[in-house]
Amino acid sequence: MSKIYVVGIGPGACEQMTIRAVKVLERCDVIVGYTVYVDLIREHFAGKEFLTTPMTREVQRCEMAFAEATKGKTVAMICSGDAGVYGMSGLMLEIGAAYPQIEVEVVSGVTAATAGAAVLGAPLNHDFAVISLSDLLTPWETIERRLLCAAAADFAVVLYNPSSKKRQDYLKKACDLMLRYKSSETICGIVSHIGRDGEDMQLYTLEELRDIPVDMFTTVFIGNSRTKVMNGKMVTPRGYQI
Amino acid sequence: MSKIYVVGIGPGACEQMTIRAVKVLERCDVIVGYTVYVDLIREHFAGKEFLTTPMTREVQRCEMAFAEATKGKTVAMICSGDAGVYGMSGLMLEIGAAYPQIEVEVVSGVTAATAGAAVLGAPLNHDFAVISLSDLLTPWETIERRLLCAAAADFAVVLYNPSSKKRQDYLKKACDLMLRYKSSETICGIVSHIGRDGEDMQLYTLEELRDIPVDMFTTVFIGNSRTKVMNGKMVTPRGYQI
Repeated sequence: MSKIYVVGIGPGACEQMTIRAVKVLERCDVIVGYTVYVDLIREHFAGKEFLTTPMTREVQRCEMAFAEATKGKTVAMICSGDAGVYGMSGLMLEIGAAYPQIEVEVVSGVTAATAGAAVLGAPLNHDFAVISLSDLLTPWETIERRLLCAAAADFAVVLYNPSSKKRQDYLKKACDLMLRYKSSETICGIVSHIGRDGEDMQLYTLEELRDIPVDMFTTVFIGNSRTKVMNGKMVTPRGYQI
Repeated sequence: MSKIYVVGIGPGACEQMTIRAVKVLERCDVIVGYTVYVDLIREHFAGKEFLTTPMTREVQRCEMAFAEATKGKTVAMICSGDAGVYGMSGLMLEIGAAYPQIEVEVVSGVTAATAGAAVLGAPLNHDFAVISLSDLLTPWETIERRLLCAAAADFAVVLYNPSSKKRQDYLKKACDLMLRYKSSETICGIVSHIGRDGEDMQLYTLEELRDIPVDMFTTVFIGNSRTKVMNGKMVTPRGYQI
């Protein structure tokens, strides 16, 4: 039976890959992915066949992977971060319904939420919610409801895709919604280019965050009511008595 | 300056560690951790000094790490999964405030949410919330509010620590709360012993899940309103048109 692995390569370069992900890629004939991610790992997997599509061509990229597997090749579809957090695992399993002879296995990786959290300190060390601000595939009303409920429940919140050229004010809109329930003094952090050259982090209050320009290479963290700054790090305590 | 790394070793054995985590452990003199986790990696890091404490002795375990670093040693505090998701990174940074001469760096890993998701298929491929059912450090009222808000917002939900000897009915209580907003037909999944011998997964409806006995080695996934079963896998679509 032909096999496709959907592999999360972690947020940065190869150091953030798991040993299992490396072994799986070494075993594959073909590595398929978004051009930028394939270029991140190409030099480490010499001799493989590489196939890429640009962003927004996700369905075409999946079909390409199944076409290669149908030829009898072992295929890896790579994703940045984890394959199952806004990654390709869902779409691959949906499209895979038409290819019952091809087995699809998901290989998890470190996602930007936990990798970015490590850069900031420990912002997600209690219950948290993960929300994408991209409304390409999700109605904004759904995103809005989730932001409000997450804030009302005092979750720490991680925002993926906080901005793009067409959505420059979305982070401000998200902050304003959360400010209905969260204090303006809530500790927040942003991390850019996680695990890559130029990795950077900054801490803000929620009031300050609403005016910060961010791009699509940034992950945003909003603390819960107990989140604090300790030695320049963002820390959400679990509640141990010390 | 002495240094302590707080290292997530992933959910299972060494295959789920990142390359960076392996390199960091190789560089350390002392590896500190909960006895069970240290035993998982001991054979792969021969020649290191190992120090362990049992569960519930987390503060003592952290103090042990700082005592070793104070002697000039390079120390790794290891955690299962990711160091920052119900892991030791927060407590280490809190206790570290008393040791300004010791640098603490967090090294992220694959957490049970994404590793378990990979076993089930793609249950977290849209916005999701992570909630621990343990009320050792968190009032049950807070947990209850978060379960209700997460269900009201139609998040997919991951439950850590769904049960223990003293809390055998907590998963049932959590399901009953979520059933106020989520359909009884909502697709759910459980994964046991992720990445370890005996790894197992099962799918249920939310109505069925409330009567399923689980233990502390199980991670529980509750879908959103669009989650479906495809070829025996749990899939939460992102919304692509296919």
